Amino acid sequence: MIVVLEPGVSLKDKAAIVRFVEQHGGRLLVSELDEATHIGLIDEAAQRQVEQIRLMPGVASIKSEAPPYPQVSRQYRESDTVVDVRDVAVGGPEVVIIAGPCAVESVSQLSMVADGVAAAGARILRGGAFKPRTSPYSFQGLGEEGLLLLASARERSGLPVVTEVVAPEDVAVVSTHADMLQIGARNMQNFRLLSEAGAQPKPVLLKRGISSSIEEVLLAAEYIASAGNTRVILCERGIRTFETATRNTFDGSAVPVLKRKTHRPVIVDPSHAAGDRALVPALAAAGVAAGADGVIVEVHNDPENALSDGPQSLTIPGFTSMMGMLKGVADAVGRFIR
Amino acid sequence: MIVVLEPGVSLKDKAAIVRFVEQHGGRLLVSELDEATHIGLIDEAAQRQVEQIRLMPGVASIKSEAPPYPQVSRQYRESDTVVDVRDVAVGGPEVVIIAGPCAVESVSQLSMVADGVAAAGARILRGGAFKPRTSPYSFQGLGEEGLLLLASARERSGLPVVTEVVAPEDVAVVSTHADMLQIGARNMQNFRLLSEAGAQPKPVLLKRGISSSIEEVLLAAEYIASAGNTRVILCERGIRTFETATRNTFDGSAVPVLKRKTHRPVIVDPSHAAGDRALVPALAAAGVAAGADGVIVEVHNDPENALSDGPQSLTIPGFTSMMGMLKGVADAVGRFIR
Amino acid sequence: MIVVLEPGVSLKDKAAIVRFVEQHGGRLLVSELDEATHIGLIDEAAQRQVEQIRLMPGVASIKSEAPPYPQVSRQYRESDTVVDVRDVAVGGPEVVIIAGPCAVESVSQLSMVADGVAAAGARILRGGAFKPRTSPYSFQGLGEEGLLLLASARERSGLPVVTEVVAPEDVAVVSTHADMLQIGARNMQNFRLLSEAGAQPKPVLLKRGISSSIEEVLLAAEYIASAGNTRVILCERGIRTFETATRNTFDGSAVPVLKRKTHRPVIVDPSHAAGDRALVPALAAAGVAAGADGVIVEVHNDPENALSDGPQSLTIPGFTSMMGMLKGVADAVGRFIR
Amino acid sequence: MIVVLEPGVSLKDKAAIVRFVEQHGGRLLVSELDEATHIGLIDEAAQRQVEQIRLMPGVASIKSEAPPYPQVSRQYRESDTVVDVRDVAVGGPEVVIIAGPCAVESVSQLSMVADGVAAAGARILRGGAFKPRTSPYSFQGLGEEGLLLLASARERSGLPVVTEVVAPEDVAVVSTHADMLQIGARNMQNFRLLSEAGAQPKPVLLKRGISSSIEEVLLAAEYIASAGNTRVILCERGIRTFETATRNTFDGSAVPVLKRKTHRPVIVDPSHAAGDRALVPALAAAGVAAGADGVIVEVHNDPENALSDGPQSLTIPGFTSMMGMLKGVADAVGRFIR
Repeated sequence: MIVVLEPGVSLKDKAAIVRFVEQHGGRLLVSELDEATHIGLIDEAAQRQVEQIRLMPGVASIKSEAPPYPQVSRQYRESDTVVDVRDVAVGGPEVVIIAGPCAVESVSQLSMVADGVAAAGARILRGGAFKPRTSPYSFQGLGEEGLLLLASARERSGLPVVTEVVAPEDVAVVSTHADMLQIGARNMQNFRLLSEAGAQPKPVLLKRGISSSIEEVLLAAEYIASAGNTRVILCERGIRTFETATRNTFDGSAVPVLKRKTHRPVIVDPSHAAGDRALVPALAAAGVAAGADGVIVEVHNDPENALSDGPQSLTIPGFTSMMGMLKGVADAVGRFIR
Repeated sequence: MIVVLEPGVSLKDKAAIVRFVEQHGGRLLVSELDEATHIGLIDEAAQRQVEQIRLMPGVASIKSEAPPYPQVSRQYRESDTVVDVRDVAVGGPEVVIIAGPCAVESVSQLSMVADGVAAAGARILRGGAFKPRTSPYSFQGLGEEGLLLLASARERSGLPVVTEVVAPEDVAVVSTHADMLQIGARNMQNFRLLSEAGAQPKPVLLKRGISSSIEEVLLAAEYIASAGNTRVILCERGIRTFETATRNTFDGSAVPVLKRKTHRPVIVDPSHAAGDRALVPALAAAGVAAGADGVIVEVHNDPENALSDGPQSLTIPGFTSMMGMLKGVADAVGRFIR
Repeated sequence: MIVVLEPGVSLKDKAAIVRFVEQHGGRLLVSELDEATHIGLIDEAAQRQVEQIRLMPGVASIKSEAPPYPQVSRQYRESDTVVDVRDVAVGGPEVVIIAGPCAVESVSQLSMVADGVAAAGARILRGGAFKPRTSPYSFQGLGEEGLLLLASARERSGLPVVTEVVAPEDVAVVSTHADMLQIGARNMQNFRLLSEAGAQPKPVLLKRGISSSIEEVLLAAEYIASAGNTRVILCERGIRTFETATRNTFDGSAVPVLKRKTHRPVIVDPSHAAGDRALVPALAAAGVAAGADGVIVEVHNDPENALSDGPQSLTIPGFTSMMGMLKGVADAVGRFIR
Repeated sequence: MIVVLEPGVSLKDKAAIVRFVEQHGGRLLVSELDEATHIGLIDEAAQRQVEQIRLMPGVASIKSEAPPYPQVSRQYRESDTVVDVRDVAVGGPEVVIIAGPCAVESVSQLSMVADGVAAAGARILRGGAFKPRTSPYSFQGLGEEGLLLLASARERSGLPVVTEVVAPEDVAVVSTHADMLQIGARNMQNFRLLSEAGAQPKPVLLKRGISSSIEEVLLAAEYIASAGNTRVILCERGIRTFETATRNTFDGSAVPVLKRKTHRPVIVDPSHAAGDRALVPALAAAGVAAGADGVIVEVHNDPENALSDGPQSLTIPGFTSMMGMLKGVADAVGRFIR
């Protein structure tokens, strides 16, 4: 439920409404859209107070059934939003392929992979410099050195780069070097990190948490938007279920469901969903067929000796072969891959 | 682990081995393949006895790492099996589309839908006569009358028909009238029903249980095969997870994972996975892109007034429109739809 | 939503209402309570028609918010129902312990276990004669011979016996020999079996399906009740989740949630939940502390050599030791164990 | 698998082993226990290299089957660890009750609740100052002001206080004011936060992530321990499953499973598991019966008007009544509550 305030409402009136809702146990959201302040009432508790709120000074009207994530909702903007990552448009007719190694390991590794995926049609380079690892004893990434290697790879290949940021205090340095910041599945509800990413200018690739509902994904994107950055791309990357035959369960419905609910671009990550390179082309194809605006995939020049996620990384020839097939699928659903 | 017995082993020796394994807490499987008896040892308990078993009379050799579902496993047959449903080949280069109403309701409903889906390219007609319903007070299907309506619809449209069987005592009558028996998700581990379906000659469409692992699906297919019927088609139809945005979660990986593990055909059911007709084309496309041998989809002439599953049923025009798109996707992955 | 009909409503009027609801896509339930016919409208579809239904002949009143399982709901009967299993009352102040082997294997095995658990305070003997097994090659139970062994064990020990029934056609023979029929997790939605169990006079122990929601458990119990048998006992036995550290996840909340929603007895099965005997006492204690009316537990004289479920079976001394602790827990929550 | 190095091994030899493992795609862990360096090989990849590692300079011996979380594992320390929270010992014979409001709201609210729970036997006061909220528009807590209110409440009531920390940069200020830091479910894999919490001296209450496996919980605790702080208490608080009847599913087995795997204290949070105050006493009792070392529970003086989590907060009389029952349960399992 959304309370729309009168244009030019006073701060005092606005604060009185906020206080009233919170005092009655309600959760709320405040945003400025189309020059009017909108206050969303999320809980039933708050909604029970709606008749009293209607009478408060400054209230223009009440809209029912609004989602709690106004800035990312398709109800507030019908047409698709295109997010530019440097010179690459994500969310338009092109299906954008993002490829690269799980972790940046060395100059030679990164340039071999960058050259290989660029030649096969990848449009953005991925690579991890800060790695969130389940065990404290695992390889944690090259850190800032990795960021510099990525920046060099961009110069060489011409591809914009995306890399993960894992802590609020790293946002500034990652934002300086990368063309897009990735927030990984484990940090999808690291709210401080979302807010920091929302306060810098580069676009953000937000991955769905391993057990996050579609609604929680959209609320996490709203965190970033509410901090001022509306350039968010969402990513389905598999969820945790009872099934152990794959690393995660690729939720095939997430793409069309998200596309109906939000105007932001939605891509898929078949590598983490599958955990096994043999399954990656089939899942990439499924994602494109289901309407994804892009695919992010792990590729390594020597997966057997990768420092992380080797088993799910495609080889460069494997990636090249997959691209041919994906172009046909994109074409069949009215899109294209360069 | 598989114990291969000598050709012509005596029943007494065979029984001694079986008894030995079971006495040591092991689960086992016995099957005849390539003229030799194979005894599979499933549990670690049994496997610990392997050195003693090796010395028992009648044992020819021991094979490690065999799966517990020999007759459906790709290890035992590398090439794809094609299952003929009357004159329609499932599992070959054609992607076979199966369509029709959730429940058979009347002559006019069934013939309208059959004509509509046949014209758009469906190759098999589906329709429920016996319905498993969560509530005892829901519409339970027309029963045998529904089977007769399906048989008439086959005469009229030329399409073979598939319909669900829900109890062992109904297998005979369904087998008489239908061209393929469906075993639904709720009955995937109704072992008596699996055995009965394995003892009749028509092919069986086996749907994955709502929380069944890939391995359990394959073991259920093995139940049917072990009763004598090897004409089994598997079907991914969504699993139960924490996500409530869709009726079930369409497990996009299930198709390529099953195709690697079994030589039997694998199809998808986007209608039950999604629970919402707006999502069906995207999931059908995802399934075909991921390598499915067919798609089974609910279509109704008047979904608003359907006796069951109306919200997830396509209209006939909706189905027709989806078919055009699916043909392109099939083509992109090297298959075809007529 | 419940439509209450006038006393003495004609069959024609009743049928017209049923037809009307089903034609509008609704699911419904019909039951006779307190001498009036109640028709439940389950779907929103049907509920949208409520104003038209209100005007139909024979309608006395409309009640909102009724659950779709009237005969098991606590809204229809506030006080706890006690189910007598021969001479043992389940659902009263006593916490009833049911114990015995997973599968009946032999006379000596069954009598050793029966004597052992009776001496330690068990009140009902369990034992499987028909076993549902995931693999077709596993031990499937002794069948009718097992039932006869159970009947002998009852004579010897004085304990009533409960055993599983896995197919509709076996209900008669199991009902003849056993004091209570068990319907296992895999068959919780085997609706034909539920109906058959509802048409015989012995009480039924209904286990929650591995991925069944609380609402589905109650609807399954309603199936049995709607077929005429209201002597149903429900059982939480663990659900399937992402966690693999235990065989299933013991849903600790299921007991108090079920007790609020139904007046029927609710027991717990820590053996199948845990899959590991070392965890059984802790889970049994948790179940009793949470308000369970009983505990069903697997006990074997020689778990290492059990034909099924050995790893989760308690030894007789282990069971005896657990009983001492459980008595204290029952006492702490105002119940008792003999 | 653990590689134990010789005492006094050179840094060069140690580094060579680490490099060798990582070059072969393995994940590893290094820790100093009992004066020898232990290197754990986690992946199969690394384990395949074990014969070559055995021959490297500096290697004393190889131990199989070691868990990847040495510092929290019961294999490394058999007896229970007791963690002192100021003057309250958690992990000894006493079952410690932690109670207080979800969020600190005001002086009067906090002192009413603190007085109430102290009088009923609570030993530690909980209260949130920094709140992680799913929506950016929800009440985010009083921040540092809340910490000061907690510190005052400690002076007044004599109870030590525990409060949540949600970002690495807040660790210092929370550590200054609180007696124990809580890391919430959403941050269980916020590895930077774990490391910061491991680098300060106060004990840490680590809640299980909503979809974290038992192994991941233990690895998260190992993160804290590996940063230098071994005073970790683990907490089961419900996991996300398909069941929607409760906010989360209380995993009853988690307590005994964790107690077998780690020597650290394990407590339960029935409030977040249930999401409904009516279920809290039953789940608290279940947790104590299953062997928990403590219970953390939300209590509010006026739950209807709480700023967050009102529906799951006990009233003060409700808490007092529950305490009487819990004392009996603790007693029945050989523990006590003051």
